[in-house]
Amino acid sequence: MKKHSILTVGSMAFDSVETPAGKAEKVLGGSVNYFSVAASFFAPVEVVGVVGEDFPRSHLDWMSHRKIDITGVEVVSGQTFHWVGSYDGNMNEAKTLSTRLNVFEHFDPKLSPNHREASYLFLANIDPVLQQRVLDQVQGNKLVACDSMNFWITGKPEELRKTLRRVDILSINEGEAYLLTGERNIPKAAAKIRDMGPQVIIVKRGEYGAMLFTPSTVFIAPAFPVDRVVDPTGAGDSFAGAFMGFLAEAGADRTWARDDAAKWDQTLRRAVLAGCTMASFTVEDFSLHRLMRLEAHELVERQKQLLRMVTI
Amino acid sequence: MKKHSILTVGSMAFDSVETPAGKAEKVLGGSVNYFSVAASFFAPVEVVGVVGEDFPRSHLDWMSHRKIDITGVEVVSGQTFHWVGSYDGNMNEAKTLSTRLNVFEHFDPKLSPNHREASYLFLANIDPVLQQRVLDQVQGNKLVACDSMNFWITGKPEELRKTLRRVDILSINEGEAYLLTGERNIPKAAAKIRDMGPQVIIVKRGEYGAMLFTPSTVFIAPAFPVDRVVDPTGAGDSFAGAFMGFLAEAGADRTWARDDAAKWDQTLRRAVLAGCTMASFTVEDFSLHRLMRLEAHELVERQKQLLRMVTI
Repeated sequence: MKKHSILTVGSMAFDSVETPAGKAEKVLGGSVNYFSVAASFFAPVEVVGVVGEDFPRSHLDWMSHRKIDITGVEVVSGQTFHWVGSYDGNMNEAKTLSTRLNVFEHFDPKLSPNHREASYLFLANIDPVLQQRVLDQVQGNKLVACDSMNFWITGKPEELRKTLRRVDILSINEGEAYLLTGERNIPKAAAKIRDMGPQVIIVKRGEYGAMLFTPSTVFIAPAFPVDRVVDPTGAGDSFAGAFMGFLAEAGADRTWARDDAAKWDQTLRRAVLAGCTMASFTVEDFSLHRLMRLEAHELVERQKQLLRMVTI
Repeated sequence: MKKHSILTVGSMAFDSVETPAGKAEKVLGGSVNYFSVAASFFAPVEVVGVVGEDFPRSHLDWMSHRKIDITGVEVVSGQTFHWVGSYDGNMNEAKTLSTRLNVFEHFDPKLSPNHREASYLFLANIDPVLQQRVLDQVQGNKLVACDSMNFWITGKPEELRKTLRRVDILSINEGEAYLLTGERNIPKAAAKIRDMGPQVIIVKRGEYGAMLFTPSTVFIAPAFPVDRVVDPTGAGDSFAGAFMGFLAEAGADRTWARDDAAKWDQTLRRAVLAGCTMASFTVEDFSLHRLMRLEAHELVERQKQLLRMVTI
């Protein structure tokens, strides 16, 4: 088993998005795009996804150059998944205007022997049936995390339950936590989710940060207050990327929960803060623009600033 | 000068309020009521306010019994101020349905020689002209804080500016910060408010906690996640009560900002956390019900829990 690599499976897309700050037409998006760039600041990343022939080769090259393993990205005949959405005054929730699945409709993730050996797995927001197919192909991971969304929570609740039984960490937002559990109170919702399987639950709260729930502790992290939110798209996936990246860099393992609870707890808390820091860069520009020009020293500097903002 | 006492001037009222959790008719409310009960856990409090003959003597007795000095509460002929409001899904913002000022309309705060000597002053949300009249009657305070609201920000902006030039600390909520400065970005709004006078700005964020801004640092504190929010009325005033109470107990002084920045910063951060903790009790029931039955050990316990939730 390779020590620190993270495998992620999900969407690569074009986004067309309008926010109070402006408009971006057919720019790079998709969960694993955000996830992988964010995670690559911390650990080796491998991506499994599918794109059409219209997807820019230059971006795949850029990812490779960054040591993101893209051998799992299939380029097939047809158009890349295209999401069209907008944000009104409330930057915490996107309104989907159209979803053209295109080549993503027939996505059927196949893992190479190399992918199967990744220590960390992040199942981005895709059909829970596909999430399970990925899980069927791996074994012996140190940690498995997943994301989901309203569409699957209401559309395939039973399949999602099956996925949840097999993951360590669930990362969702406030509205989704409510939808999944029927419980508006977040700590209570987290407790119900824990009964479904994941022992670690991250509830993302947009501009208000994120909450971490484990069986023994709660941690509440604020978002880093940026000067100007341009586009919140991808904030959650970049949060997850830095969060998983931090855990991978630390060599975290689900056995820590049992064997070294203090280390487990502290590593998770720091990982959440890393996630909040990364997401704060993502929202400063459209698409992956800010992440792609982010320098490691800026990340370290802002991480320190955020730490200072929460230290008592 | 008495060492630790806090003088507060503001409204004592009846509230009729409806929330998703239920309804309360003509229950005790008003800013200084919430403020004083909260502050009294930390330091001696003196209240200046006015009530009508319909205000329950038993409550004034309860306050006295709790060592809240009510010699400044005038009981005059007529009815007590009565606020009627409701909260919809969004528990972070009240909708005012009616405001019957009654005897509060002619409130003209007169401070006794004893009141004038209080070290700490909290000007609750009242007409900024009255806030200034109070300021005219005091001198040599260690710290002066004030609150305000949309009604005065839009109705008496010039008078409010005059008040702000004379206070150390302003405590307002997110929407009010925007209204006061025209700036939606909270750190930028805080910077603009600082130019108006107050060197310490608290921005309250309802269920998401509060932010503290000083010229040199930012601190972001979460709300304590309660099991069930019954009524958010008074959360801001109880926050302010515990915050000022904590500062008074610590003997904080505006000169600390210059002479011992680290102590000043840390004391303010802890005071904010005390405020968040206190507010979390207030929202658990209607009116002052939860605060009035709150035991010191519960406060200490929850304060510890909250500290644990933010510690990295």
